[in-house]
Amino acid sequence: MIDLLKTVGQYVRRNSLLPEAETVVVGVSGGADSLCLLHLLRRLAAERGPHLHVAHLNHGLRAVDSDADARFVADLSQSWGTPCSVGQADVRSLTRDSGLSLEEAARQARYGFLAEVAKAQGARTIAVGHNADDQAETVLMHFLRGSGVTGLRGMLPRTRLADYRIAAAQQRESVPDGTETQLWLVRPLLNTRRVEIEAYCAHHGLWPRFDLSNEDVTFFRNRLRHELLPALERYNPEIRNLLAHTAEVMAGDYETLRSALDAAWEQMILASGPDEVQLDLLRWRASSIGLQRAAVREAIYRLRRNLRNINWEHVERAVWLGREGQTGQLATLTAGLVLRVGYRALRIAAEGAQWLPDVPQIAGLLALRTPGVTSIGNGWRVVVQDLNSCELPRDYDTADAWVAWLDAAAVGPNLSLRPRRPGDRFQPQGLCGHSVALHEFMINAKVPRDARAGWPLLAGEYGIAWVCGLRLDERVMVSDATRNVWQVTFEREPIPPSR
Amino acid sequence: MIDLLKTVGQYVRRNSLLPEAETVVVGVSGGADSLCLLHLLRRLAAERGPHLHVAHLNHGLRAVDSDADARFVADLSQSWGTPCSVGQADVRSLTRDSGLSLEEAARQARYGFLAEVAKAQGARTIAVGHNADDQAETVLMHFLRGSGVTGLRGMLPRTRLADYRIAAAQQRESVPDGTETQLWLVRPLLNTRRVEIEAYCAHHGLWPRFDLSNEDVTFFRNRLRHELLPALERYNPEIRNLLAHTAEVMAGDYETLRSALDAAWEQMILASGPDEVQLDLLRWRASSIGLQRAAVREAIYRLRRNLRNINWEHVERAVWLGREGQTGQLATLTAGLVLRVGYRALRIAAEGAQWLPDVPQIAGLLALRTPGVTSIGNGWRVVVQDLNSCELPRDYDTADAWVAWLDAAAVGPNLSLRPRRPGDRFQPQGLCGHSVALHEFMINAKVPRDARAGWPLLAGEYGIAWVCGLRLDERVMVSDATRNVWQVTFEREPIPPSR
Repeated sequence: MIDLLKTVGQYVRRNSLLPEAETVVVGVSGGADSLCLLHLLRRLAAERGPHLHVAHLNHGLRAVDSDADARFVADLSQSWGTPCSVGQADVRSLTRDSGLSLEEAARQARYGFLAEVAKAQGARTIAVGHNADDQAETVLMHFLRGSGVTGLRGMLPRTRLADYRIAAAQQRESVPDGTETQLWLVRPLLNTRRVEIEAYCAHHGLWPRFDLSNEDVTFFRNRLRHELLPALERYNPEIRNLLAHTAEVMAGDYETLRSALDAAWEQMILASGPDEVQLDLLRWRASSIGLQRAAVREAIYRLRRNLRNINWEHVERAVWLGREGQTGQLATLTAGLVLRVGYRALRIAAEGAQWLPDVPQIAGLLALRTPGVTSIGNGWRVVVQDLNSCELPRDYDTADAWVAWLDAAAVGPNLSLRPRRPGDRFQPQGLCGHSVALHEFMINAKVPRDARAGWPLLAGEYGIAWVCGLRLDERVMVSDATRNVWQVTFEREPIPPSR
Repeated sequence: MIDLLKTVGQYVRRNSLLPEAETVVVGVSGGADSLCLLHLLRRLAAERGPHLHVAHLNHGLRAVDSDADARFVADLSQSWGTPCSVGQADVRSLTRDSGLSLEEAARQARYGFLAEVAKAQGARTIAVGHNADDQAETVLMHFLRGSGVTGLRGMLPRTRLADYRIAAAQQRESVPDGTETQLWLVRPLLNTRRVEIEAYCAHHGLWPRFDLSNEDVTFFRNRLRHELLPALERYNPEIRNLLAHTAEVMAGDYETLRSALDAAWEQMILASGPDEVQLDLLRWRASSIGLQRAAVREAIYRLRRNLRNINWEHVERAVWLGREGQTGQLATLTAGLVLRVGYRALRIAAEGAQWLPDVPQIAGLLALRTPGVTSIGNGWRVVVQDLNSCELPRDYDTADAWVAWLDAAAVGPNLSLRPRRPGDRFQPQGLCGHSVALHEFMINAKVPRDARAGWPLLAGEYGIAWVCGLRLDERVMVSDATRNVWQVTFEREPIPPSR
């Protein structure tokens, strides 16, 4: 027989499941899993320190037996000298009131009760008895639903209880966000097989009240357990172990993918508010399709706080519109969200939200503070700084298109923004002093038609100095003779982060 | 009916499957998939340009029918005005000679023939007719084998034929590496369902020679197709589509994971030769478990050129030994490989390979070139540079432990390395001038017992100046009064990269 004390102890240690010298609440139904869990944790605690507190919720679902189960757990705890809290829930009426399924209502009542006991006991950790067979079923269930790496992680050995509640909320939206809780749900038996647990119980004279494995599972999960997994074992006898391993590998890969997304997100996020997320279109398009998908999902998650009803087709449609769509193209995504290919942003927003332009737009003449910060409306502002030419950044001519450096002597002391006027011309940098019509320049530069009228032009003493975001006038360029430089930067007004 | 010309055309374009103005070899068996493929590619080619060349291999497996199949494909090609090459293989005797299964021998013969035709025609692209149902089966098969993201990608829309041969070699080792070929295998129908292909054939009056879907599949795959997938459809009617989507998502995630591994590998690789890979132990330990696993797998792959027979347990054992093992601990991995926790490296090597120390070790007194480069043996060398104190790098005291900066006036002009001697003492930096026994210092610094005798000590005019890799003597530290500095660096002798 496998020495569960050793293997579970190792699993607990490697995954940092048990805090030392703190109270841990142990959810005990009276079935084999939770009896084995409690017995093992008592032996581990003797070595390692946490104080245990048993919690049992009487769901009131099994008529006479429910009360007997509760008494059994209370008596056992007393005889083992472990404090115990027994709670009572009327799951049937909860189901009637909430419209939840019986299983889901029971699960929510149970986790809610465990959280209450944890708070009352000053515990931050709640241990439950999910085993490797439960894990295999969970992985299989997610596989059959077409989940990617996220779902194929199955259950995690250690997870915030708040996350569980959010996950539940994704399904039903009836559980509050619960971010006030800082509770950890841990699963010390997650890599222990059900047969090992049963053997352990028999060996140690533990007599479970009933076969928990058949209780408290949904119809779908029951079919997986009793029909599909046995059928799959005829294809691969090791399937349950393999699925549990798949979960572990996927959990590791998920962390790697998440880190890669976080790093990419940092690079591509332009703005993130409660109603709209804007991703830098060029950077988003330059990243791999895997990160493009991940960023779209992240944007949806930030706007909706969940990914309920977001399926492969929704993400794929958004990704391909983003990759191939023309400026201004728009598509309804799902969950009340709309995607739009902006001039410099891939934009995902709540349906009906106002589309503020993703490039600066101005209504009329606007004097700039020199130096200083001038708000120009629509969420943009302009920062003018006075530099000595030796302060120029090394990469000053290859940086962001919305920053420019101008020879202050050539432009003069007074800077303003203005929209175009009929007959406007300028001498674009790189055209050897040739003058071109602004109208034609804008067409060649692919400025969208509806953005042309409000496009900001930076004007100095002698006319247009910068067609902002696009091209300097040759006469204001910084040269070796330049002594003082205006650095002009278009910035987003800060938006409070949504996360 | 779905317009396959449009959907397949889009798939081809998005995945860059067809080169323009080149020849593409199309593998045509005469079944529905390949007839549909050829018909569609002819219509797409009319718009986009590649020249098609049909290739058919007569496996000689179906007695009379085989020859009739070959004639059918040849006649059809002629009537469509497409050039055609028909080959002949004696798969049965191939099976006898090689010990391959019939399916595997047939597959190898087929891909070998397709590659030959491609070379003869100057083509770089070979198109084959795998469809979305084949893909679903492949993903399911990998899932049942416990594959991670790599396997759950299923078949790729575009892959090097050399990669296919390597994959085959992983199974059987009887196919040469084939890196001389630069052939691409493309699968334009990979997101098209079998029922759509059959409907297309019927609509366009194409009469397949036989039901290809039942030919040329292994026993295991046949069971998946005819038993398991129909059973899974009772759990989720959309399962085949979902599995095909899973493959696409996983292919994207694989690229992200691969990029993350490449970046991490760059940071943690110390040495990579044909018989040993050394990873920086501290950096490897500081990375996430997902990257730790990926790096171990990569190391095994680099040493063995495949991951055959490498399963979850092997990788997991290696990872946990690397995470928790003491210096010097050693374990047999698998496939003739041994893992060892070195002093500064996690080392994976061929069984029986000589364990060169992963820290510098010296046999006796050794004068150093000042300035200059001195080889000290065992794959290490020492570089001494003469710096002015204002040339010191900004982070000079927080850098690599195997680089030191010493006050040249305090150390003197002659530097040498020597091993310890009985009674050695020095004044460790940070101990306010206290002198300690070198022997005790080494124990406290956890220098492994068998590395102590050969541990290099840098000696100057007044004795030990640097216990190399560990601690400077206080008297030679760079101070504000320092004018000239010896920069001493221990480096690996360059090893030719293995990849």
